[in-house]
Amino acid sequence: MARKDNKPDGDLTPAAGNGILNRRLFLERTLMAGAGGIALGASGASAEPLTNPKWTMEPGAPFNPYGKPSRYEDKTVRQFAAPANPATPGVGSSRTPHHLLDGMITPNSLHFERSHGGVPDIDPQQHRLVIHGLVKKPLSFTMEALSRYPMTSRVSFIECGGNSGGLSAPAAAPLNVQGIHGLLSCAEWTGVKLSTLLDEAGVDPAAKWILAEGADSQSVSRSIPLAKALDDVLVCLYQNGERIRPENGYPVRLLVPGYSGNMNIKWLRRIKLVDAPIMTKDETSKYTILLPTGKAWQFVFPLEVKSTITRPSPGLDLKGPGFYEISGLAWSGNGKIVKVEVSADGGKSWAPAALQEPVLSKALTRFRAPWNWNGGPAILQSRATDDTGMVQPSRAQIIAERGLRGAYHFNVIQSWNVDEKGVLANVHA
Amino acid sequence: MARKDNKPDGDLTPAAGNGILNRRLFLERTLMAGAGGIALGASGASAEPLTNPKWTMEPGAPFNPYGKPSRYEDKTVRQFAAPANPATPGVGSSRTPHHLLDGMITPNSLHFERSHGGVPDIDPQQHRLVIHGLVKKPLSFTMEALSRYPMTSRVSFIECGGNSGGLSAPAAAPLNVQGIHGLLSCAEWTGVKLSTLLDEAGVDPAAKWILAEGADSQSVSRSIPLAKALDDVLVCLYQNGERIRPENGYPVRLLVPGYSGNMNIKWLRRIKLVDAPIMTKDETSKYTILLPTGKAWQFVFPLEVKSTITRPSPGLDLKGPGFYEISGLAWSGNGKIVKVEVSADGGKSWAPAALQEPVLSKALTRFRAPWNWNGGPAILQSRATDDTGMVQPSRAQIIAERGLRGAYHFNVIQSWNVDEKGVLANVHA
Repeated sequence: MARKDNKPDGDLTPAAGNGILNRRLFLERTLMAGAGGIALGASGASAEPLTNPKWTMEPGAPFNPYGKPSRYEDKTVRQFAAPANPATPGVGSSRTPHHLLDGMITPNSLHFERSHGGVPDIDPQQHRLVIHGLVKKPLSFTMEALSRYPMTSRVSFIECGGNSGGLSAPAAAPLNVQGIHGLLSCAEWTGVKLSTLLDEAGVDPAAKWILAEGADSQSVSRSIPLAKALDDVLVCLYQNGERIRPENGYPVRLLVPGYSGNMNIKWLRRIKLVDAPIMTKDETSKYTILLPTGKAWQFVFPLEVKSTITRPSPGLDLKGPGFYEISGLAWSGNGKIVKVEVSADGGKSWAPAALQEPVLSKALTRFRAPWNWNGGPAILQSRATDDTGMVQPSRAQIIAERGLRGAYHFNVIQSWNVDEKGVLANVHA
Repeated sequence: MARKDNKPDGDLTPAAGNGILNRRLFLERTLMAGAGGIALGASGASAEPLTNPKWTMEPGAPFNPYGKPSRYEDKTVRQFAAPANPATPGVGSSRTPHHLLDGMITPNSLHFERSHGGVPDIDPQQHRLVIHGLVKKPLSFTMEALSRYPMTSRVSFIECGGNSGGLSAPAAAPLNVQGIHGLLSCAEWTGVKLSTLLDEAGVDPAAKWILAEGADSQSVSRSIPLAKALDDVLVCLYQNGERIRPENGYPVRLLVPGYSGNMNIKWLRRIKLVDAPIMTKDETSKYTILLPTGKAWQFVFPLEVKSTITRPSPGLDLKGPGFYEISGLAWSGNGKIVKVEVSADGGKSWAPAALQEPVLSKALTRFRAPWNWNGGPAILQSRATDDTGMVQPSRAQIIAERGLRGAYHFNVIQSWNVDEKGVLANVHA
């Protein structure tokens, strides 16, 4: 148990203002004053004896072919707003409850959903993936044919281009991390490289883009540059080990690592090679960034570097002064996270957080920082940097750059206010 | 699309006997002859036109707070044997269907279960974790108190010490990969380092072991060396992001990375620091390795290096000669996998498989190798090596070393026979 330095155990010298401690506390074995358990008597049994609740005294439940969470966790669910039109209950989105999760993997049952025409109930025996257009040999694949190709797995986040757009509202809305950042999830995806299938079809040199289209009732479709399609795009069959869930594209979806969620076409039925983008609804009237001038940025693909603190956050109020772990998620559609800084004084001072290994390209990265709350007011923030050198901007920076009309790719620093009662709230700071 | 060598695309020169191809095929973009799609007419629409099944023509299903798999995947379930005693339906195990999965993560609903007294239905508000025995200050933790400590996440396999014991049967049983190797799963686990809690309690220098005990009706308990407890053991609250599932120890379990599954105490209620192992039932009458002499190896902790091919495997018969991906899992309780070799001729010749990144210590590692089946008989095998230099042994080696009475830690090379009809079966080879 040798220590790497000569500091006493539990060195609580601040690393930034308002109680942010040194992340090295996590690398050392240290006392976390104030966070701990209840001391028992010396016998280990007097102050709060070991009890024998009924579940220790009677046989438990038998086996279950496909398990589910404890009944005590029934609040850990996706959240969805009532649809704008009650006739289209499948149009909208449901959000991942990041304030109740930890780690980097999102369990499949809680992966966010975005659906433009509801979740189709597709028979995999009938479903086909067709590759056509500017190719030498158009091809049609059964799901079984696809499953014979070499596979690749990667842990990758998917984020809706509209995620966190709520932060563009002029006044800070009373939302929690799920309501603001819940259109974001991360899974281990497994599938066939699209490049393998395109090679078999034979790409015509005139092809510069692909059109990918889903088999849902809206035929959601997007144009993707051919260079990206030949780089790291996967035709996915598996999500965290098992076959992809219906709301995430069963039986087959596209994974376009780091690009807007909407481009990761679900229920994939067709890839057409074309010489120019097709200008579908979802790349013209939607998923573009409208500027104050009335013009819009189009084909802005990789999701920029971003982070948010997930705990503490609204709904997880503090139980009095003392030690807390600040835990959160950082990600970039351009590569790996190299640094996350945290602040407890609204950005006046920052200290680096610890990054949880493994740190993977275009995947969620969990960060952690120790914080000693003194019971006074605080504003918690996190700021991520990726391996291209891009730093997460403040809300003021984004507004100066592009105004507030275009809320896609809204990667601003999130601020959580902490009041003297320990109650957290979304604020613009 | 520059190539790293001058070989033509799709170089199918064997890397080992009976059709094993070079793993570099996966690094190149190559035609996978025979695995592919159905060619369409030049218009892309004649031979098999795009159809419009009903799910493309009508709105799909609305949102679901907690999702579930497609109804077409209802065979992807855990498998459990009928209990020896019908009065104890919760005593036994259920197995992960690895032949139907890909990647390294096991989804929570399919994580294997091993239960000695059924799954308790624990109220997290009432549950306590007590640390006592040879400590300066005995402590009792509520689940909320635990959740305030610094957390650590790691992807780790858990394997029952009795997994694959079926291969010790004198005659090869007609079992599939689930039946033989299904007491193995892998998840991202998140929790508090046990060392942090032990530091707070203050370890008495006389303590050399800990006893960990569960709150199930059997009070399953194991002795663990203190050095391991202070190394990488976690007191886990989360499994693949969400709170741990009931059958995996809700609300809190121990993760003892790389050690026998039985030591990863579920429903953890007590850790007692002691000066010598306690000799509980599960470290004396069970989970020891009985030798032909009648003596037994006890306290054999890390699970030795192991692997199995999951696809093709029994139940996933081949559909005629041509290209197949051999896909499987390798793992070691001693560290990282550094090499997996595959053979299609029962071990006469071997070629290295590709290892799927990230390769993590004490986690499942997915391997893949290309195979061109000529339609003749074959015996598929995999052989893993870890970073301590340990190589997975043949069945004959294990039998020579310790006989067949003790089937725990049975890490022998798995052989799948392929007959001329493409039917796969477990064989001893």
